Amino acid sequence: MSTSRFPRIGILGGGQLGRMLALAGIRMGLHIRFLSPEPSSSMDGLGEAIVGDWLDPAVLRKFAAGCDVITVESEWAPLERLIDLAPPKTLWPSPETLHLVRDKGLQKRTLTAAGLPTPAFACCATVDDALAAARSFGFPMLLKRYRGSYDGYGNATIRSEDDLRAAWPRLAEWDGLLVEAWAPFVRELSVLVARRPDGQRVVYPVAYTEQHDHRCHAVVVPAPIDSRVATEAQRIAVDAVEAFGGVGLTAVELFELEDGAILINEMAPRPHNTGHYSIDASQTSQFENHLRAILDWPLGDPSLRAPVAVMVNILGHRSGSASTDGLKEALCVEGAAIHLYGKEDVKPRRKMGHVTTTGTLAVETRARAERAAALITL
Amino acid sequence: MSTSRFPRIGILGGGQLGRMLALAGIRMGLHIRFLSPEPSSSMDGLGEAIVGDWLDPAVLRKFAAGCDVITVESEWAPLERLIDLAPPKTLWPSPETLHLVRDKGLQKRTLTAAGLPTPAFACCATVDDALAAARSFGFPMLLKRYRGSYDGYGNATIRSEDDLRAAWPRLAEWDGLLVEAWAPFVRELSVLVARRPDGQRVVYPVAYTEQHDHRCHAVVVPAPIDSRVATEAQRIAVDAVEAFGGVGLTAVELFELEDGAILINEMAPRPHNTGHYSIDASQTSQFENHLRAILDWPLGDPSLRAPVAVMVNILGHRSGSASTDGLKEALCVEGAAIHLYGKEDVKPRRKMGHVTTTGTLAVETRARAERAAALITL
Repeated sequence: MSTSRFPRIGILGGGQLGRMLALAGIRMGLHIRFLSPEPSSSMDGLGEAIVGDWLDPAVLRKFAAGCDVITVESEWAPLERLIDLAPPKTLWPSPETLHLVRDKGLQKRTLTAAGLPTPAFACCATVDDALAAARSFGFPMLLKRYRGSYDGYGNATIRSEDDLRAAWPRLAEWDGLLVEAWAPFVRELSVLVARRPDGQRVVYPVAYTEQHDHRCHAVVVPAPIDSRVATEAQRIAVDAVEAFGGVGLTAVELFELEDGAILINEMAPRPHNTGHYSIDASQTSQFENHLRAILDWPLGDPSLRAPVAVMVNILGHRSGSASTDGLKEALCVEGAAIHLYGKEDVKPRRKMGHVTTTGTLAVETRARAERAAALITL
Repeated sequence: MSTSRFPRIGILGGGQLGRMLALAGIRMGLHIRFLSPEPSSSMDGLGEAIVGDWLDPAVLRKFAAGCDVITVESEWAPLERLIDLAPPKTLWPSPETLHLVRDKGLQKRTLTAAGLPTPAFACCATVDDALAAARSFGFPMLLKRYRGSYDGYGNATIRSEDDLRAAWPRLAEWDGLLVEAWAPFVRELSVLVARRPDGQRVVYPVAYTEQHDHRCHAVVVPAPIDSRVATEAQRIAVDAVEAFGGVGLTAVELFELEDGAILINEMAPRPHNTGHYSIDASQTSQFENHLRAILDWPLGDPSLRAPVAVMVNILGHRSGSASTDGLKEALCVEGAAIHLYGKEDVKPRRKMGHVTTTGTLAVETRARAERAAALITL
């Protein structure tokens, strides 16, 4: 890569993660180009947008031309299709990392092979295999599609053998399903790691993440946990990122069990909803550190600027055109940093924006973020 | 203005102030449209850019169509040309405020009429008037063009009557020049005020500003001054903004004299170089509060997130194409938030970017900002 001009970053995808990457990159003087299979108002007015079939070599060639580094905002974006169109070491996370992460079975086997703790699991080709695994794990347990399941889609919580028999034909694909033991967790945690191609890395503080109805609702940083548990969570996250050769930002979602033991739930090789707080509350945001990492630039300080940070998602509650309803009221909430993703259409449960607050007491800081987020009805 | 969709902000100008306004606005879901008389790489990849003659009614009509509020990044942008093209109360700062600010004589008379302290001045039509004023003020004294003088351009420091006679024909315009007594200041200060159309306002902490060669070099917040002086500086700044009916962000540049007395140096009715620190170091940046103010939205908290913030400008040192030289080294400086304005051409003294640091001790915090800024040779 030339050091004599400002790099151009290609981003596969045009949603809120790409939008926030672009805002971080433009601030540093980077050029941004998106490729999205569909028009997206989240990337309106940011960078250069190409809308086209990202499986079409001609579209990919046009997109790649002049990009110094290409990245993704989703692990499902077909970055591997660019291998012959881009110079070596300019696609990050590497297509190999994406391959290991995308398939939940392969992801879990990779973690296990590296000696990292996960809930017990079995890759089951038939319902009979799954029943056998369920008997050994006990109920409740989880069925998950290997590919494309997230946020409550493509997976199911199974409470009995009858449940399992009923769910199998609805969910199973040609290679079956992943069967996973239920982790009796007391908290869900998340650790962000930014890593350069040469292995230099920084680790963000452990975040406590709260899910409502299978979607991230709130994130509190630092997580209210024992410092030994926090250190162990960070160690496990770093080892996991190393196991996948992760370059750029990786989010490692974790379970904390009653006794403080940590299990890895899932890896996301990209900026992550549980790291949005970092825009306002960290010395260096996850988006800036993702860009610095994939550019092989020195990484920034991941520490908090305040004792506590809280992020609350703003989800859609209806279908229709987005509006600014409630925004003025939310702006009155002290210290509420409001981020809206420019999505023109609201849908129930769609991620429309988020609010970050910082403070000294978690309860008070969270109350402000919750209040501001609840006021924005869009 | 409709509250049911996200507002579109029109910005006259396409430099770094417009760029940082756009970044703040997009984050909140606003749409941004620029009108610039010349192509500008600072606005590349941000919002919708119209390049055209901003004195041409057809260009202005196209620009104004669909904008909910129109603002400027420079007091010299011809906002008044939009009076008949935009609904009432959608041009901010108001054309009246711009009129009072642009002419340095009228600006000073407005301040004096409001009982606000400024250096002694006289509006002089002839060199003989100026000589008379100079005799009463003593030397050194200043000659300034009423319009368009800034950062060392269009003005001169005069040390003798001969100096004055020599400078007059070079500087004087049809209506003469402003003659101003030299203020024996110990520090230059700046206070930012954001004000809504209804008068609601917030005041930023007093900033200490250091000029090198007539250009802002560094800003330290809070200014290392007596708290009574700080309170008085904020009071004077607020009264000045009220005297001009300022809406949006106004920067009030001040002199602190040996005895702690405050004089107003100059008003800038827009986001200002001395407020760039606020992007990283304040609860709400000057850019966000400018947008909130002109939209008549509730204003955000102007307080610092850290005990001390320092901003150092990155100026060009040569002529040529901008490069990333030194950027990697600067990114290694702890806690340095680096902002580059996307300008493709470097020129000596051109503002290319800035660095902000936060910390607890001013000397240490400043040393980091200076180090990072000096490393970036672009």
